[in-house]
Amino acid sequence: MELSNIYEPVREDLDKVKERLRSISKVDFTWLSQLLDYSLQGGGKRIRPILALLSGKFYNYSFDCLMPMAMSVELTHLATLIHDDTIDNSSVRWGRSTVHKLWGTEQAVLLGDYIFARAGELMASTGDIRVVRLLSKTLMIISSGEIAQAYNAFNLKQTRESYIQRIASKTASLFCLATESGAVLSQAPKESIEILRDYGYNLGIAFQIVDDILDFIGTEKELGKPVGSDLAQGTFTLPAMLLTEHYPEDNPVKRLFGSEGKEENIRLAVEAIRSSSIVEECFAVASEYTARACEKLEQLPDNTSRQALVNLADYIITRRR
Amino acid sequence: MELSNIYEPVREDLDKVKERLRSISKVDFTWLSQLLDYSLQGGGKRIRPILALLSGKFYNYSFDCLMPMAMSVELTHLATLIHDDTIDNSSVRWGRSTVHKLWGTEQAVLLGDYIFARAGELMASTGDIRVVRLLSKTLMIISSGEIAQAYNAFNLKQTRESYIQRIASKTASLFCLATESGAVLSQAPKESIEILRDYGYNLGIAFQIVDDILDFIGTEKELGKPVGSDLAQGTFTLPAMLLTEHYPEDNPVKRLFGSEGKEENIRLAVEAIRSSSIVEECFAVASEYTARACEKLEQLPDNTSRQALVNLADYIITRRR
Repeated sequence: MELSNIYEPVREDLDKVKERLRSISKVDFTWLSQLLDYSLQGGGKRIRPILALLSGKFYNYSFDCLMPMAMSVELTHLATLIHDDTIDNSSVRWGRSTVHKLWGTEQAVLLGDYIFARAGELMASTGDIRVVRLLSKTLMIISSGEIAQAYNAFNLKQTRESYIQRIASKTASLFCLATESGAVLSQAPKESIEILRDYGYNLGIAFQIVDDILDFIGTEKELGKPVGSDLAQGTFTLPAMLLTEHYPEDNPVKRLFGSEGKEENIRLAVEAIRSSSIVEECFAVASEYTARACEKLEQLPDNTSRQALVNLADYIITRRR
Repeated sequence: MELSNIYEPVREDLDKVKERLRSISKVDFTWLSQLLDYSLQGGGKRIRPILALLSGKFYNYSFDCLMPMAMSVELTHLATLIHDDTIDNSSVRWGRSTVHKLWGTEQAVLLGDYIFARAGELMASTGDIRVVRLLSKTLMIISSGEIAQAYNAFNLKQTRESYIQRIASKTASLFCLATESGAVLSQAPKESIEILRDYGYNLGIAFQIVDDILDFIGTEKELGKPVGSDLAQGTFTLPAMLLTEHYPEDNPVKRLFGSEGKEENIRLAVEAIRSSSIVEECFAVASEYTARACEKLEQLPDNTSRQALVNLADYIITRRR
């Protein structure tokens, strides 16, 4: 199923969110306006705003509150990407040059800060202090998770547990923010808030596992960045972890993390993973999480958004970009 | 007058704020805890928390609300410094190595993000959405001001007006946040909120002008960083501006910004400014702002905090570090 069919129940409102996101760049300071324009036209699937809107559909749907929240979640995501690309020294994202590549570290760090602030301002404009606290806590989780990832770069001694914990911080936390905030802002009862939060969490984990698989099996064109980027950064993802489990004595990931021939070992790792059962094994783990995501959805009111959340879980696991 | 005498009316509560700030580093993740510890022991005069507490003393003083706000303002300041040092590639602050110097760009950017988030979380814990919005807006102003500063680096075509605008964004905005939030959280009437906001604004401008003077007339030991650091970054401050006004045809700042001999021209600029009337002229401008800061204070209730604010303005202009 295409993503554009899935979000049908919130299509119109999503279009408004997208339009308002573009208008963020309308500021007096021309240079800042250009930086924002460039960043906002980058692409991305807008999955987080979709989650935010769909999660708000079960009780008192209030678009006036949900819109700034959905924008805030997407902008937080964008700001983290701008900072990530800067510290990873990445040149390409979504098939385009990164802000860092085009305008340097200084502009990229400050632009990220500006967008974080704008995200905070939008969240506060909902008038609901609970979602503001959720945003702050999420950003604390994301940045401490990224600090952990950087700290553990090129370290083979990481467990599956620590992997899940890491992607929970870096990805699932923001999915959670979208679904939980949608529930909170529509005055959902406590149990439903929990169900939607758990959905966001498990969906986020599955999404990141698939992202980590695609980093090995996708093409550069599909990925919008080089294949094997995670390994190049020393990020030990599930496929690479399974490869070292399968060949504990000697394998390209071990050699790479031991500072041996970078390009050569990335290429060999990509080949080894593609030609083994590892891809399948990783998809199986991701599927466990999407199954868990949908487990309790039927306790929510039955409507088109509930079906959309189920379809979205299916999309997450079958997507190829 | 010593700073420690000035904040007497809020001494006990300031000690509690300082203690709680140190306890921010108590997190489970040991490495993050060490990073926070290092950053929080850096020094600084804690002028922003002092302003926050004093400004809350005129109506319903509620330390439970003021404490997290004061912490939030100080942490926002700290996070901006960590990012600034990173993008300026500065090695030393407060006489110690910067986070960036010790642990690299990656850790410094992410630590700054974490501290921004913690600041947001603390501000939200006041339960007052108005001060959360003020914080977000302030951070937007600061970061867009820094983007402007970076964009205009090594550009001689800047006016006094654009200088004041720049330091208003980068420094006065956070002073404002402290004083306005103090007023808001103590349920001050509208007129008093404005008086305290204007006080913070004008004090912040004066503070930054003095900072910019000290960058030329201080010693490396007093400054905790090299003399002439602003010029080295291409930041065109008031003393440098006056030097080019005095000698429009040829001067060391013009030569430096034209990419001629860096060290030599910084040294010559420092000498030229120290041995002229420029220092005095700059202090006169700063004094105009402290006078403006205090202008309407007498409309506030008469108490020891009001006198402290007057004394603080005096301290700001006479301080030598």
